Amino acid sequence: AALALAPGLAPAPRVASRAAVSMDSSKPVVIGLAADSGCGKSTFMRRVTGIFGGESKFNDIGRETNTLVSEMTTVICLDDYHKWDRTGRKSNPEWPDGITALHKDCQNWDKMAEDVLNLKNGVAVEKPIYNHITGMLDPDEMVSPTPIVIFEGLHPMHDERVNQALDLTIYLDITDDVKFAWKAQRDIAERGATMEEVQKAINDRKPDFSAYVEPQKAKADIIIQVLLSDLIDDATGKFLKVKFIQKKSCPVCESPFLFDKGSKITWTPNGDKLTTSAPGVVLASYDDEWFGEAVSVIEMDGKIDVLDELIYVESAMCSTGTKYYGELTEQMVKNKQAPGSENGTGLFQTLCAFKIREAYESLRK
Amino acid sequence: AALALAPGLAPAPRVASRAAVSMDSSKPVVIGLAADSGCGKSTFMRRVTGIFGGESKFNDIGRETNTLVSEMTTVICLDDYHKWDRTGRKSNPEWPDGITALHKDCQNWDKMAEDVLNLKNGVAVEKPIYNHITGMLDPDEMVSPTPIVIFEGLHPMHDERVNQALDLTIYLDITDDVKFAWKAQRDIAERGATMEEVQKAINDRKPDFSAYVEPQKAKADIIIQVLLSDLIDDATGKFLKVKFIQKKSCPVCESPFLFDKGSKITWTPNGDKLTTSAPGVVLASYDDEWFGEAVSVIEMDGKIDVLDELIYVESAMCSTGTKYYGELTEQMVKNKQAPGSENGTGLFQTLCAFKIREAYESLRK
Repeated sequence: AALALAPGLAPAPRVASRAAVSMDSSKPVVIGLAADSGCGKSTFMRRVTGIFGGESKFNDIGRETNTLVSEMTTVICLDDYHKWDRTGRKSNPEWPDGITALHKDCQNWDKMAEDVLNLKNGVAVEKPIYNHITGMLDPDEMVSPTPIVIFEGLHPMHDERVNQALDLTIYLDITDDVKFAWKAQRDIAERGATMEEVQKAINDRKPDFSAYVEPQKAKADIIIQVLLSDLIDDATGKFLKVKFIQKKSCPVCESPFLFDKGSKITWTPNGDKLTTSAPGVVLASYDDEWFGEAVSVIEMDGKIDVLDELIYVESAMCSTGTKYYGELTEQMVKNKQAPGSENGTGLFQTLCAFKIREAYESLRK
Repeated sequence: AALALAPGLAPAPRVASRAAVSMDSSKPVVIGLAADSGCGKSTFMRRVTGIFGGESKFNDIGRETNTLVSEMTTVICLDDYHKWDRTGRKSNPEWPDGITALHKDCQNWDKMAEDVLNLKNGVAVEKPIYNHITGMLDPDEMVSPTPIVIFEGLHPMHDERVNQALDLTIYLDITDDVKFAWKAQRDIAERGATMEEVQKAINDRKPDFSAYVEPQKAKADIIIQVLLSDLIDDATGKFLKVKFIQKKSCPVCESPFLFDKGSKITWTPNGDKLTTSAPGVVLASYDDEWFGEAVSVIEMDGKIDVLDELIYVESAMCSTGTKYYGELTEQMVKNKQAPGSENGTGLFQTLCAFKIREAYESLRK
């Protein structure tokens, strides 16, 4: 299908465009964030947009919208590119057994690619809206470009036209054990579901998730992987080991590390400087492979008790993309109440926000 | 037995004397080094005396002596305080089965204590000589005090009068596996001994070693412990894991550490900055307990190939007692040919030399 691009615009291979095209400073930097539903994307987005300042609000269209806008940032939810409404997914003659929102045939790829490319080129778009409350496809909304446009949802890297257009791609990888633990906590404790129901709900989504969402893991520049803690036998998902994985090939931001670049380090911080309750905190930093590509990894296992003391951890982190000593801690403290602030999810989502800023600034130079 | 001390001198508890007595700058700082025979003490001593400059030579008495003297240092071998000559040990009516040189009843403790205390107080001594070649007790030699006097041998910490007098004590702990591996390499490969003979030679010394030498491990301020490598299954003792263990209570020098004080860190250096062949190098730094006392530990496992690159390892080591960037590496390179230069024994013996200098300077202040 031919795309309705603004005149003179065509999709180009991402890496080539990064290297060869000197960025027009009026044009947005576009970021992709892939993550499953119910995995804390809105918290992640709050951490990201927060470092660019200004208030982040829903697009001012006087009705339900998923688009969040601040002076510097726009966050577009890719659910808006669902091809059918909720009823249509369930009673589509093409899909007698229904189709999950995860399936590739359930997204309007052409429109997604068109909008990403137009916004990347500084052109406002009329984009569809999927109404999460009613499950209906609402009338289009006008979205104007801001310096940074983030496309978050199930499939920012599935369609190669979209993937190639993105300047930086991120995959939030909640591993199965953690997903089950979180869902079990919520559905069983709060909604009275049974263990079997929880497992069934996960299993029902699994085939399409594995077929269309998970393969993007290999493509992303940065992966935030969330695993159960190695320090304690905890099935509730309250103690987490989180990895910040960055491809060495990523040209728009540097890989962060602990203490010494290129070394393999495990670090149990000094208990006098960082308050932790059992089982404590262990960090690590090392090089690894990710689907055959060279990556560097920082990981944090466990929880910290006093968020202000994170300044001590920050002081051991290098190439974070912060502009002054303590900026990472400052952001963490500012979002103290947000879920995950006490563990690696909050820390590495915030680190990722600085990497997005670094990418933005390196492309705007 | 009453000691023949210079007038006005009496043995005082070591810790009290450290704290209370302001050091007379004309009086030597005295150091104790405990180690078994054949464990590389002479190399260790060369590394130590080397950092104080000047040539280290045998005491100029025109005959066999064990005492090494330079402008700043004197190294006294405690074998000189053996009570009997070799024949006397083997055919003493008190010991019908013979007595090993390790046994407490084989040392002249009173004379040892007298000499240590006199030298510590700046008084020259007439000390005995045990002739390692003839096995005889030769006529006494005159030893004059130098700013640093090191007592090295089997028992510098056995007698409490001597132990208390010492300003800093070190134990070179070659673990049994390593001792066996080294002795096997030497005696089997070079002297045609059998495995059984090697084991028997070690077993014969074991009871007295365990009774009179090993207990000093608990008393020392600094312990250099040599173990077989964890990285490779090597029974030849060519790959070693070496620990530098320092008591936190030690008041005369600071504990060295990697990267961050009080943290637990394991570190595999960046292979681009430090050339190693398989199985590589792993360092670590952490707090631990040593016979119930709080200690800090640095360890190094494996071998490095290019000694000059040690500057990179040195840059991660803190509180080493060096006076300028690269001084530790400089000393290592200077002693490049000495055994152990490629592994933790050389590194930590050199580190220990800096700790001796630090102790000396803190006491001379």
